[in-house]
Amino acid sequence: MSQAKHVLAQVLDRVDADLETSLERLFEWLRIQSISTDPAYREECVKAAEWLNGELAEIGFESSLRPTGGHPVVLAHSRRPDRPHALFYGHYDVQPVDPLELWDRPPFEPALVKLPDGRKVIGARGACDDKGQVMTFIEACRAWRKVTGELPLSITTLVEGAEEDGSKFLPEFVAANRDELKADIGLVCDTGMWDSDTPAITSSLRGLVYEEIIVRCAAMDLHSGRFGGAAQNPIRILSQIIADLHDADGRVTLTGFYDGVHETPPEVLKQWAALGLTAESFLEPIGLKYPAGEKGRMVIEQIQSRPTCDVNGIIGGYTGEGTKTVIASEARCKVSFRLVGDQDPAKISEAFEAFVRERIPADCSVEFIHHKGSRALSLPYDMQALSAAKSALKEEWGVEPITIGSGGSIPIVGNFKRTLELDSLLVGFGLDDDRMHSPNEKYDLKSFHKGIRSWVRIIAALAE
Amino acid sequence: MSQAKHVLAQVLDRVDADLETSLERLFEWLRIQSISTDPAYREECVKAAEWLNGELAEIGFESSLRPTGGHPVVLAHSRRPDRPHALFYGHYDVQPVDPLELWDRPPFEPALVKLPDGRKVIGARGACDDKGQVMTFIEACRAWRKVTGELPLSITTLVEGAEEDGSKFLPEFVAANRDELKADIGLVCDTGMWDSDTPAITSSLRGLVYEEIIVRCAAMDLHSGRFGGAAQNPIRILSQIIADLHDADGRVTLTGFYDGVHETPPEVLKQWAALGLTAESFLEPIGLKYPAGEKGRMVIEQIQSRPTCDVNGIIGGYTGEGTKTVIASEARCKVSFRLVGDQDPAKISEAFEAFVRERIPADCSVEFIHHKGSRALSLPYDMQALSAAKSALKEEWGVEPITIGSGGSIPIVGNFKRTLELDSLLVGFGLDDDRMHSPNEKYDLKSFHKGIRSWVRIIAALAE
Repeated sequence: MSQAKHVLAQVLDRVDADLETSLERLFEWLRIQSISTDPAYREECVKAAEWLNGELAEIGFESSLRPTGGHPVVLAHSRRPDRPHALFYGHYDVQPVDPLELWDRPPFEPALVKLPDGRKVIGARGACDDKGQVMTFIEACRAWRKVTGELPLSITTLVEGAEEDGSKFLPEFVAANRDELKADIGLVCDTGMWDSDTPAITSSLRGLVYEEIIVRCAAMDLHSGRFGGAAQNPIRILSQIIADLHDADGRVTLTGFYDGVHETPPEVLKQWAALGLTAESFLEPIGLKYPAGEKGRMVIEQIQSRPTCDVNGIIGGYTGEGTKTVIASEARCKVSFRLVGDQDPAKISEAFEAFVRERIPADCSVEFIHHKGSRALSLPYDMQALSAAKSALKEEWGVEPITIGSGGSIPIVGNFKRTLELDSLLVGFGLDDDRMHSPNEKYDLKSFHKGIRSWVRIIAALAE
Repeated sequence: MSQAKHVLAQVLDRVDADLETSLERLFEWLRIQSISTDPAYREECVKAAEWLNGELAEIGFESSLRPTGGHPVVLAHSRRPDRPHALFYGHYDVQPVDPLELWDRPPFEPALVKLPDGRKVIGARGACDDKGQVMTFIEACRAWRKVTGELPLSITTLVEGAEEDGSKFLPEFVAANRDELKADIGLVCDTGMWDSDTPAITSSLRGLVYEEIIVRCAAMDLHSGRFGGAAQNPIRILSQIIADLHDADGRVTLTGFYDGVHETPPEVLKQWAALGLTAESFLEPIGLKYPAGEKGRMVIEQIQSRPTCDVNGIIGGYTGEGTKTVIASEARCKVSFRLVGDQDPAKISEAFEAFVRERIPADCSVEFIHHKGSRALSLPYDMQALSAAKSALKEEWGVEPITIGSGGSIPIVGNFKRTLELDSLLVGFGLDDDRMHSPNEKYDLKSFHKGIRSWVRIIAALAE
């Protein structure tokens, strides 16, 4: 065994030996209710940032809380000027927990739970997204430090507190601290595995356009007995808009929506087909069977390489128990689009607005809230770091990692590219049934444990 | 002046002189928060019933609270075996008040308010529907009693507490008390005027079918970045269902929906056209301009003689501030149909269920809550009481009253017909801008005052 391999084995042994205390540390962090979108949890967000700041300082990082227009960023450096410099990104904020009544356990009281299929999982809001994932990297650094007294790389960690709120203030922060953040490679731990045995590296990300509309008709709520049949109903108008957004083949009908969407090359499609991901196997864990997307596309295309449109919420009229014969004066809905290739968020936002306005009767009105937009992103397939990470993951998991596109959006990756000219390696250990934005979020203990070991190996590989 | 006319004039003077105390009594009743659909207000409903019971006893009725499966009925008799017997119906329960923040004043603190156009109105929940309307009849009886020591008719009043909850237990109550309720004519005060100068008698009522559906897709809320494009979205399914319920001409698309709908005779249509009700004049008070109903129909047809379909409420997904990229696991909506002619509520309920089930993907499910159904009803145009009431109203208002169909449903009228073989005269003084089921409900002082005077005259006319 070479000296390097010997050290690596020691660090991995350290990870195994420390797993229980690693878990305890994660639990501490998970107990902090750092919901970024709700102002009531502002103090909790600061607490989560301070907790992480303390951990980073403990393992030798020069760490501090840095102010932004929103929640603070935790920025930390562990410098080795002779080594490649990696910029690690994650977030300490979590999704809201409503509806609370659907949680089996309190969302901020983490526990190790055994699933009926025997898997041990960490149950809590943020267990996967993103505290558990961030901790796989931090604990990997801790093990390196414990065994060798230093890290094999120069590492900067940037952990923000507003990812679930659209990372609103981060672009400004990155621009203002461009020199301090310059690095050779970005590392992001906020994505998933292919399945619970097969690691994945995410090489493309869908963009996002998020819109909200409020349709207003009569000046007041109306009695449907008196006015039904004569007065416009805003819920009916919204329903027509939502129904019209897709055609019978499941394609989005906005003008110019597919401009900039590139067909996946036949050889890549062939590789994807060979993966054997069936609609049944993908949808079974969430209780569904039949793919609902564009006709004639494999499920893997529908979720990775094709743009989509979903209505994320709707409300209008009487929604309590029993009946009320009312015609609402207004109704509202939230609609979002996932983008791929070179689709332009601004153009899609405009096309949506025009599409909606066309469907508003002349005596009604509509208000738009344009929440956010981000472009899709693809990483270069020939990145040297990509090969290094692939080898490291293969050693840990015993199988070839899969390079996939992600359906989700991580706007910071595009920001790193544009502002820091930095390509990022997206490696994460989430699973499809982690319920990331739902009640009963969890993170498999195996994801956590082998996630730490994976980072130990990737850090070593990138140092070579 | 005949003796009868002289007495009538005295009673009308009494009404005028007592208007202020009549108002005070109404305000007392309006302060009681008798929301029937919300169990939290059960005691308030009993309080409203007891208050009315006391008033009726005070003006010589033999009155008592009678139990039902829900809120009690206030049943009272004032017998004159030699005179025709009228059965008066009204309700003491009121609609819920949400959304509370849209009220200019607290809904249960009644006040006399002056509108910008100079009208004085009584502002409170229930001011019109139905406490104010019921009090026009009670105060008319009070004035008769004060002046003559008796009523010109044998009168039974039946005032229930669950009209806004579908009068669920009333059919049973009427059937169980059939002999006690037998009368020559029904009187109902729960309808509106033609306009603020022109009284109306409602001679037909639309029926009602009220349905609620809950569409369930994935077993949990999903992240739209991961599953968008592959997983069914229940809001999109609901939207498609709602959009499909009408065709491009505004007709309802349920199979067999128009079975039993009779075309209005051309001579009646001609009369209606002569009334000069334009879409603009009907819709202007509610802030709209263009009729939204069936193409090629006058607005008066759309609201009186044609069946309709409205979605009364919808909710699903994330409805809070900001964004959440969620695909909801379930969404629900409430849909109601107004029926005319011989449309069968049971068949329409079945057709709706079939229509919805056809549109539910094979891996999703739907739950139905069938809230209630009632047939439409028409009164005989040659009723003797109808002519008597018309003359009485003409004397009070100085213009010919208009015989109209009503868009709303008052199920008890059909029940009286079937169970008691009783035709009912529907006279009421509500106006289109009374906001009956909305925030800021009101009742014009003129409606209240001349409403009392109208009943004084109708009671006299029916006694002849």
